[in-house]
Amino acid sequence: MPHPIAPPPDPRTGLALPAGVTICEVGPRDGLQMEKTFIPTAAKVALIDGLSATGIGEIQATSFVHPSAVPQMADAEEVISGIARRPGVRYTALVPNERGAARAVAAGVDAIDLVVSATDSHCLANTRMTTDQAMQRARGVARLGAEANVEVRVGFATALGCPFEGFPPYERVERLVGAAVETLGARHVNIADTVGMADPQRVHGFMRRLIGTFAGVTFSLHLHDTRGMGLANVLAGLEAGVTNFDASIAGLGGCPYAPGASGNISSEDCVHMLEAMGVRTGIDLGALLAEGARAKALVGHADSALLEAGPARALGPYRAPVAGEA
Amino acid sequence: MPHPIAPPPDPRTGLALPAGVTICEVGPRDGLQMEKTFIPTAAKVALIDGLSATGIGEIQATSFVHPSAVPQMADAEEVISGIARRPGVRYTALVPNERGAARAVAAGVDAIDLVVSATDSHCLANTRMTTDQAMQRARGVARLGAEANVEVRVGFATALGCPFEGFPPYERVERLVGAAVETLGARHVNIADTVGMADPQRVHGFMRRLIGTFAGVTFSLHLHDTRGMGLANVLAGLEAGVTNFDASIAGLGGCPYAPGASGNISSEDCVHMLEAMGVRTGIDLGALLAEGARAKALVGHADSALLEAGPARALGPYRAPVAGEA
Repeated sequence: MPHPIAPPPDPRTGLALPAGVTICEVGPRDGLQMEKTFIPTAAKVALIDGLSATGIGEIQATSFVHPSAVPQMADAEEVISGIARRPGVRYTALVPNERGAARAVAAGVDAIDLVVSATDSHCLANTRMTTDQAMQRARGVARLGAEANVEVRVGFATALGCPFEGFPPYERVERLVGAAVETLGARHVNIADTVGMADPQRVHGFMRRLIGTFAGVTFSLHLHDTRGMGLANVLAGLEAGVTNFDASIAGLGGCPYAPGASGNISSEDCVHMLEAMGVRTGIDLGALLAEGARAKALVGHADSALLEAGPARALGPYRAPVAGEA
Repeated sequence: MPHPIAPPPDPRTGLALPAGVTICEVGPRDGLQMEKTFIPTAAKVALIDGLSATGIGEIQATSFVHPSAVPQMADAEEVISGIARRPGVRYTALVPNERGAARAVAAGVDAIDLVVSATDSHCLANTRMTTDQAMQRARGVARLGAEANVEVRVGFATALGCPFEGFPPYERVERLVGAAVETLGARHVNIADTVGMADPQRVHGFMRRLIGTFAGVTFSLHLHDTRGMGLANVLAGLEAGVTNFDASIAGLGGCPYAPGASGNISSEDCVHMLEAMGVRTGIDLGALLAEGARAKALVGHADSALLEAGPARALGPYRAPVAGEA
């Protein structure tokens, strides 16, 4: 006789976690941008439409970068116009500069994700500007977003680890976030572990302090699993009070400029862990796994434990323990 | 100019973690037992001797099971007698029953790891006994260990998830631990997530309650990374007060009886995360990575993120942030 699903741990002894989180699916952008073979626009649109049907709240659908820098994203306008917009889903796009922001606004995205590297050497390698120079330039993007009434979210690449410089000090990251909030008017800031260098203690310490310092700002985490710490860092972020996480379907992706980078955290693995812990994502794990299989078939590879092993048996068809259940 | 390594997070905002832990390396047993090709005894001994030079405190060197059940472990006596015993390292062996325990004692192990499945169906599949019947039989092993003055540690497979039954209730696991302590005299109990089903909230809840209930008993965790939660579960265990963890060099291993099982947590990934968080392991990560490469070459595969990506750049050659460092 199967055991019933065990009750959740005594609340007095449980980890203090948020009741729910928002997942931003970045696979269509961060995952696909690494692919050498051009993925047909129709396939990208089909993947995004499939993902939007899983209950996911946000999808970073593409990036408006120069096609010579990232040829895979040359069809950004076509992708955005091809999507069947689903009510309740926010479709965002990454932009590196004002020109990209203008294209994103014209294409009709719901929000712009502006990315600046938190370390000078990574920023110089990507944009031939220091971080401070890039923040100056970002004013144009912020103005453009404000005029068009499109939210500009600011993300800091390498904030939790840089392949060239090591770990930027917390104070530098706090100063950059302050500039994003005060000068650019950001109300949502993304903190990225671009090449999977951060450990849970670093993630927890940074996020707890940032959340404590910038009241009213929403912080999201962009984590990679390069050194196996991806989901441990999600847990540390949750404990610090973070309720927004980027994740990539089938674990696709990496950073084209950062040596040694591999693999965003997998959306399937992340959602499975969250739901098992009773942290609600609003996402149907079965539907998400089907999209993971689609993404894997599309690119011919994947890096998702759950796509290999399936959900924990007693959860399948997926059913997480419910608080108070005996 | 590279940044200096960032200071650790403000202690007021950091996760509360133990200052140090003991890692039990289970690769020579749990890792190699799955290999179809017989690994020569000399290669096993060389791996164990290499591991013992990394600073690791405990090595589960082999298992005294019937050779027809696990042919790979048929040379258990030769492995134990071939090791160059290093002072300060505990060499243990897994045993399923009294016959195995007698062999282990005769071979001169430092401790016996007796394993019983916490769920009846897994126990029946492995031993044709229910868990309670297996616990009755275990008395013989306990007596034998006591007579020989060799510690008997009791481990509960599937305590955190069973591929056949789902999740055993906490109360069942507590009852079994109670029997191990009272009837078998165990002072060290291993709690296993044999097929990687547990989430961090379950691990934290179980371990916190067990540690709170059984004062004076040392608890260790045996975790698998089957669904990507391995290191997140280590973090949850640390937060619950667990200071002993099994890990397997190169991430080798699995469970021969449990469908869908794969991969223990990798020793390299685990030690890297712990040291990065300031939790001392006493292990030289560089030396451990060299043993990971040796293990990978020996069996022709590996499942360790760190073996692929290397340590976080600012840590390599390995250097963890030090509390108070500016």
